[in-house]
Amino acid sequence: MQLGLSVSDSDVSSFTPLVVLELADDTKAEAITWLLNRIRDKQQNGGAELLVNQLLFPAQDDQKPNPNVFVVGSTLQRLLNGAEDVGLFKEFQDGTMRGFTYANRESFKDFNGDGEGFLSDAECQYIIKHELDTLRAKNEEHVPGYPKLKLYPGKSVVRRLQSKGVLIQYFPLHNKEDLKRLSFSWYKKFKLSLQPLDDIRHYFGEGLALYFGFLEYFTFALVPMALIGIPYYLFDWEDYDKYVLFAVFNLVWSTVFLEVWKRCSATLAYGWGTLSRKKAFEEPRAGFHGALGFNPVTGREEPVYPSSKRQLRIYLVSVPFVLLCLYLSFYVMMVYFDMEFWAINIYNENPDIATSILLFVPSIIYAVVIEIMNLLYRFAAEFLTDWENHRLESSFQNHLVLKVLVFNFVNCFASLFYIAFVMQDMVLLRQSLATLLITSQILNQVMEAFLPYWLQRRRNKKVHKRMRRLMGDKELPLLGQVQLETEMNTYLGTFDDYLEQFLLFGYVSLFSCVYPLAAVLVVLNNITEVYSDAFKMCHVFKRPFSEPAMNIGVWQLAFETMSIIAVVTNCALIGLSPQVKAYFPESDTQLILIVVAIEHVLLAFKFILAFVIPDVPKHIQVNLAKLEFDSLEALKKRVILRIAFI
Amino acid sequence: MQLGLSVSDSDVSSFTPLVVLELADDTKAEAITWLLNRIRDKQQNGGAELLVNQLLFPAQDDQKPNPNVFVVGSTLQRLLNGAEDVGLFKEFQDGTMRGFTYANRESFKDFNGDGEGFLSDAECQYIIKHELDTLRAKNEEHVPGYPKLKLYPGKSVVRRLQSKGVLIQYFPLHNKEDLKRLSFSWYKKFKLSLQPLDDIRHYFGEGLALYFGFLEYFTFALVPMALIGIPYYLFDWEDYDKYVLFAVFNLVWSTVFLEVWKRCSATLAYGWGTLSRKKAFEEPRAGFHGALGFNPVTGREEPVYPSSKRQLRIYLVSVPFVLLCLYLSFYVMMVYFDMEFWAINIYNENPDIATSILLFVPSIIYAVVIEIMNLLYRFAAEFLTDWENHRLESSFQNHLVLKVLVFNFVNCFASLFYIAFVMQDMVLLRQSLATLLITSQILNQVMEAFLPYWLQRRRNKKVHKRMRRLMGDKELPLLGQVQLETEMNTYLGTFDDYLEQFLLFGYVSLFSCVYPLAAVLVVLNNITEVYSDAFKMCHVFKRPFSEPAMNIGVWQLAFETMSIIAVVTNCALIGLSPQVKAYFPESDTQLILIVVAIEHVLLAFKFILAFVIPDVPKHIQVNLAKLEFDSLEALKKRVILRIAFI
Repeated sequence: MQLGLSVSDSDVSSFTPLVVLELADDTKAEAITWLLNRIRDKQQNGGAELLVNQLLFPAQDDQKPNPNVFVVGSTLQRLLNGAEDVGLFKEFQDGTMRGFTYANRESFKDFNGDGEGFLSDAECQYIIKHELDTLRAKNEEHVPGYPKLKLYPGKSVVRRLQSKGVLIQYFPLHNKEDLKRLSFSWYKKFKLSLQPLDDIRHYFGEGLALYFGFLEYFTFALVPMALIGIPYYLFDWEDYDKYVLFAVFNLVWSTVFLEVWKRCSATLAYGWGTLSRKKAFEEPRAGFHGALGFNPVTGREEPVYPSSKRQLRIYLVSVPFVLLCLYLSFYVMMVYFDMEFWAINIYNENPDIATSILLFVPSIIYAVVIEIMNLLYRFAAEFLTDWENHRLESSFQNHLVLKVLVFNFVNCFASLFYIAFVMQDMVLLRQSLATLLITSQILNQVMEAFLPYWLQRRRNKKVHKRMRRLMGDKELPLLGQVQLETEMNTYLGTFDDYLEQFLLFGYVSLFSCVYPLAAVLVVLNNITEVYSDAFKMCHVFKRPFSEPAMNIGVWQLAFETMSIIAVVTNCALIGLSPQVKAYFPESDTQLILIVVAIEHVLLAFKFILAFVIPDVPKHIQVNLAKLEFDSLEALKKRVILRIAFI
Repeated sequence: MQLGLSVSDSDVSSFTPLVVLELADDTKAEAITWLLNRIRDKQQNGGAELLVNQLLFPAQDDQKPNPNVFVVGSTLQRLLNGAEDVGLFKEFQDGTMRGFTYANRESFKDFNGDGEGFLSDAECQYIIKHELDTLRAKNEEHVPGYPKLKLYPGKSVVRRLQSKGVLIQYFPLHNKEDLKRLSFSWYKKFKLSLQPLDDIRHYFGEGLALYFGFLEYFTFALVPMALIGIPYYLFDWEDYDKYVLFAVFNLVWSTVFLEVWKRCSATLAYGWGTLSRKKAFEEPRAGFHGALGFNPVTGREEPVYPSSKRQLRIYLVSVPFVLLCLYLSFYVMMVYFDMEFWAINIYNENPDIATSILLFVPSIIYAVVIEIMNLLYRFAAEFLTDWENHRLESSFQNHLVLKVLVFNFVNCFASLFYIAFVMQDMVLLRQSLATLLITSQILNQVMEAFLPYWLQRRRNKKVHKRMRRLMGDKELPLLGQVQLETEMNTYLGTFDDYLEQFLLFGYVSLFSCVYPLAAVLVVLNNITEVYSDAFKMCHVFKRPFSEPAMNIGVWQLAFETMSIIAVVTNCALIGLSPQVKAYFPESDTQLILIVVAIEHVLLAFKFILAFVIPDVPKHIQVNLAKLEFDSLEALKKRVILRIAFI
C-alpha cells in the first residue's frame, strides 16, 4: 500500500483536506495509481490538478479498516481558476453579484492579497466536486485492472467508477469550527429571531438554504391562519356551518402566500448570486447506460438510449404500476372505512370510555399504514425511475417527483375527499383529518430525526471507544473525523423535506376550514421541524455538497397545483355547508350554479393575480437589467474600438 | 436651400437610397444643417456615419412641394458593422443561424468578396433605422434653432424631433424589382401552394412574416372544422341537439391548434435566427415625457415619470373609462334586443316576405354599430394609453392590447352569451351569430383593403398626372417613387390584423357548435384575407420597417385565454342541449354536477397538454443547446489557455 502518501495527521497539514474519496477496499492497485495520477495531473494534460493523499487507519481489533480512503484538497490558485470554471457568483465592489473571473479578481469585495479566505469551504468543496466530476477519460479503453469498466474519450471517470461500485462515495468534510458557530446561531440558543439563512448558505449551499428559507416563510405565513383558527376552534366547536368565512380566507391566503414566496425566493437568490447564473451543460447521470453513440449537442462519444424505448418503459410499465398502486391505496381506504364503521357500531352498542377510544383506532392504524405505503412506494418509484434510464439527473428527478407526488396525494387525501364529498360527513372528516395529521407528524419526526440520531449516537460512541483504545490519548482529529463521517448516513437531498411540507400544505389548504386547528398543528410541527432539521443536518448526516439553486424548482409548481385544487375543494365545501344551503331552500340547481360561477371567478382571479404580481421584485429587476446593460455596453465599446482601428 | 446636395436622379446614384426622411417644410435651416452633420459624422464622434442627400422636387402648379425630403443610405462597411451592432442573425457555413460578427464574416454562408448582397434590403433599412434611432445628443442643450426642443446627453435625437413634429416621418423605400417578384409569387398567380413566408420575411421582416404564417396556419387548421361543419349544416339544419359531438371536437381542436402553432412559430423563428436572439435594452418611446432624472439601469440622464402617478391614471381614469364603455356596450345590446322583439312581433302579426327580411335588420344594424363602437373605442384607448405615459413601447402596446381586447370581446360576444345562457334560445343564437359574422367580415374587408386601395389609386393617378405634366417624358423614377410613397398611408402594425383573427377565432371556438357553418365562413374570409392583406402590404401602404420577432407575442396569450373560455362555453352549451338533458330526466342537479366535473377534467387536461407538449420541437432544442454548448466551450478554452500561460 505505497500508492498515495501514507499520511498521519502531521503530514496532511501540507494542505487542507476538503473532500473524502472512498474506494472499495478490494480495488486493484493499478486502478488506484491511475486514478490518483489523473487527479494530480496538470489541467493541460487533461488532469484535475488537485492534491490528494491516502489516509491509513490503524488496524483495529474487531475489523480491518478500509485502506482506500483518500482526502482531496487543492491549491488556492487552482480553486480560484475553478471558481471561474464553474461560474461562481461573488460580491463585486459595488455590492452587486457578478460571475467571478480571475482576471478581475481584485475588483471583488473581500478579495485580499492572494485570495486566502475569499472562497468559503462549501464553495471550495463544490469546485473540487465539479473538477472531479468533469475529469474525463482520454484514450484509455477501460479502467486499468478492470477490463469490464469500459471508457471512451470524454467519459467522466468518477461517474464510471461510481456506477460500478469501485468508488463507494465521495463527500465533503465538515468544518468543526464553522459547524459549532453555525449550530449555535441556528438552534442552540432559544430565540424568536429568524434563521441565519446566509450562514446556512455559506455552510451548506443555496439549495438547502432555500429549503430552510421556505420552511421559515411557510411557518410564518401559517401564523395568521393559526391565530384565526384558535377562536374558531374554541367557540364554534359544534358549529360546522361557520366555516364559509374561513374557507374564503383560506383561498386568498393560499394564492397570495405562493406569489409572495416567489418574490422572497428571487430576493434570496439574487443576494446569493444564483438568480442570474446560467445553467451549464448537464452531463449524463451516473446510472445512465446505453449503446455508444454521439451526443447531438456536444458531438462527443457518449451512451445513447433511444427516447422511444424510454417512452415505452414509462407508458407500458411505470404508468400501469402507478395506477395499480393507486388502486391498492383505494382498496386500503375502503378497508379503513369498514374498520371505521365496525368501531362506530361497537361504540353505539356499548358506549363507554374504552369504546370511545376505540373510535380513534382505525384512523391511527390507517395513518400508520399510509406512512408505510408511502415509504414502500417511494422505493419502488426510485427503482422504476432509475430503470427508465433517464439521461439527465434533472429529468430523473422530475419523473420521480411526479410519481411520488401523485401517489402521496391520493394516498393521503383520498379518504378525506371521500368523506367530504361522497359521505358528506363533516364530523368524521374533522376527526379523520385530525388523526391523520397528528399521527403522520409524530411518525415523521421520529423517522426523520430521532431514529437516525439515535443510531448515529450509538455508532459515534463505538467509534470513539475504538479510537481511544487504539491510540490512547494521542489526538488524531482528522483520522477520527474522517472515520466518523464516513459511516454517517448520506443526506439524500431536500426531496423528503419538501414532500412533507407539501402534504402539510395540503392538509391546511384543502380541508382546514372544517378543522381550523390544522394550521395550529402545522405551525407547532414546523417549529420543531426547523430545530430537528437543523440538528440532523449538523450532526446526523454527512455534510452534503452545496447545490446552487435559484428557486425551489418543481416544488413551486407542486404547491401551486395544490392551491388550485384547494380553490375547487373549498368552493365545494362552501356549497355543502348548511349555512349556504339555507339561502337556497328550494333550488339546489341555483346553489350549484352560483358556487360554480364563484369558483370560476376565483380561479380566473387567481391566474390574473399570478400574472400581475411580478415574480421578481422591481428593484432586483432593475439591478439585473443594469448588469445586462453594462455587459452589452462593454461589448459595444469593444466593437466600436475595433472599428476605429480598422 | 443649399444644405444637402441638391440631387437629381443621376447624382443620387452615388449610393442606393434606402430610407426617406421627411422634415416639416418650415424647419429652420440651422436645425437641418445640424441634423445632417450629425447623421454624416463619424461614429467615434458620436455620429451615425450614414450617407444622406436632399431630394429637390420641381415646383408644381397647384402646390409647393416640401423641400425638406432626404434620402439616407450607407456604405457597405458601415452596414456590416451595424449588422453586428443590432445583433443580426445570419446563416453560418454549417447551416445554423448565428449572431453576425464582422471578424467572422468569411464564415457566414453567402458572404462573398466584400459582402455585396449579403444583407437584404430590409436588413439594411432596419440597421439604418437602428442607427438613426440611437443617434444621441452630445452636449447640445437644445436643437439648434429650436430653444424649446431641449436635449440632454444621451437623448435620441430622432425621437426628440419626432415628438415635436419637426421630423414628420421616416420610412424605408420599396424596392420595385423585389416587390414585383414577391407580389407575383404571393398573390398574382392562382395557386394552392403555401405562402412564400421566407420571401415575405426577406422583404418585410420577421414580424409580418409570422403574421402571415399564423394566418395561413389558422386557415388550414380550420379546414377540418369546416369540412365537418358542412354536413352538419346540410343534414341537421333543424336538429339543434346534435351538436354535442361537434362541441367536443371543437374543444380538442382549439387546444391542439394553439399548442402546435407554438411549435410551428418556434420552427419559423429558428430558421430566421430570431428565436435565440437576445433583446436589446429598450429605449423610451417617442411620446414619453417627464422631469429629467437618471435611469437606474443605464445611469444616463433621461425623463423620469413616477410609476405611482401612472398607476393612479390607470386605476382612476382608464379603468373607470373602460368600465363605462362596457356599460354602454351592454346598453346598446339591450336596445338591440328590444329591436329584435319588435321585429319578431311585426313578423308574427303579419308574416310575409317583407317582414321576414325585417327579421334580419336588427342584427345587421347591431353588427354595424358594434364595428363603429369598436372603431371609436380604439381611438379612445390609444389616446388613454398614450396619456398613461408608458416609458416603453412594449408596455404601451400591452396596455393598449388589453384595453382593446376586453372591450372588443364584450362588445362582440356579449349578445351571443346573453342569448345562449340567459335566453337559452338556440335558434336566435344561430341567426345572430351568422348575421354578426357575415356583416363584420364584409365591413372589415371594405374598411381594411378596398377603401384604402381606392383612395390610394386616386392619389396615385393625381401624382402621376402631375409628374407627367411637369417633366414631360423625362424619366425620374426616384423622385416619382419618393413622392408617391411619401403620401401613402402608414401601416400601423399587425395589431388590427391579429385582432380580427382573434375575434374570428372567438366566433368559431365559442359558439360554432350551434352554427357549424361558422368555420366555413371564416375559412372563406381568410382566403380572401390573405390576398387582400398581401395586396395592401405591397401596394396600399408605405413599406414598414422590418421588425424582428420570435413569436406572435401577447396574441398567443390572448388566443389561449379565448380557448380556455371556449372550454367553459362549450361545456355549458353541451349541458343545455336537449339531447344531454334527456339522459337526466329527473335531476337537473346531477346533470350540472357532471357537466362541471367534465369541464374541470377538460381544463386540467388542457393545462397538462400545454405543459407536456414542448413549445420548441426537439431537434431545434438540440440545435440551440449545441450553439450554447459551443460558445461555452470556446469560453472555457480561453480560460484554460490563459491558465497555461500564467
